[in-house]
Amino acid sequence: MRNAWRDMSKLEKAIVAIVEVFEEYAGTDEQKTQLSNAELGQLIKAQITSPEFKDKVDPDNIKDVMEELDKNHDGEVNFREFSQCIAGLAKAYYIKKHGKEKCRGKGRGCQDK
Amino acid sequence: MRNAWRDMSKLEKAIVAIVEVFEEYAGTDEQKTQLSNAELGQLIKAQITSPEFKDKVDPDNIKDVMEELDKNHDGEVNFREFSQCIAGLAKAYYIKKHGKEKCRGKGRGCQDK
Repeated sequence: MRNAWRDMSKLEKAIVAIVEVFEEYAGTDEQKTQLSNAELGQLIKAQITSPEFKDKVDPDNIKDVMEELDKNHDGEVNFREFSQCIAGLAKAYYIKKHGKEKCRGKGRGCQDK
Repeated sequence: MRNAWRDMSKLEKAIVAIVEVFEEYAGTDEQKTQLSNAELGQLIKAQITSPEFKDKVDPDNIKDVMEELDKNHDGEVNFREFSQCIAGLAKAYYIKKHGKEKCRGKGRGCQDK
């Protein structure tokens, strides 16, 4: 795949960054496409550092995080499971900023922060 | 919320970027927390530009994209629906690079879905 980072949009760069972070940590043992317990711990300790995200993922309790993410119970986190976790973190960050979605449809509203 | 961009990790910056892109395009009409059909079209046209992503989302057929994303059928795309779309795009990008997850290891965890 050609590297076209420079031409990518902000959204595309964000997606590529998420993939790269997964690759970096998943690649430290033989199972290059999965995060082991230890790899997940390293990823979370290094990458979830801001208070905005830390309360969603507890770096001191990787076992629980693993159990939540490992939907197919194979003891590893694959990229599909990881991307769902990222979507969850993004949603939590968004809700922190904007509040839970309430009204929709007509009217102004919906902008409670 | 304090702006601590500089202190954020690569992963956290990526998540914030995804939220910011949504906010930018969702904020152009009165429904600031939802993407209308027109806003979704603008977002996709401007942000999905690389061949790596374009074949997953067709900028010339926003109506179909909207139908696929708008899980609650309210005619708008909220952040939850958008974040699921991003997770899907990330997964597709990952599969393009690494291939589909296959069975590996010792027979455990070969539950490719």
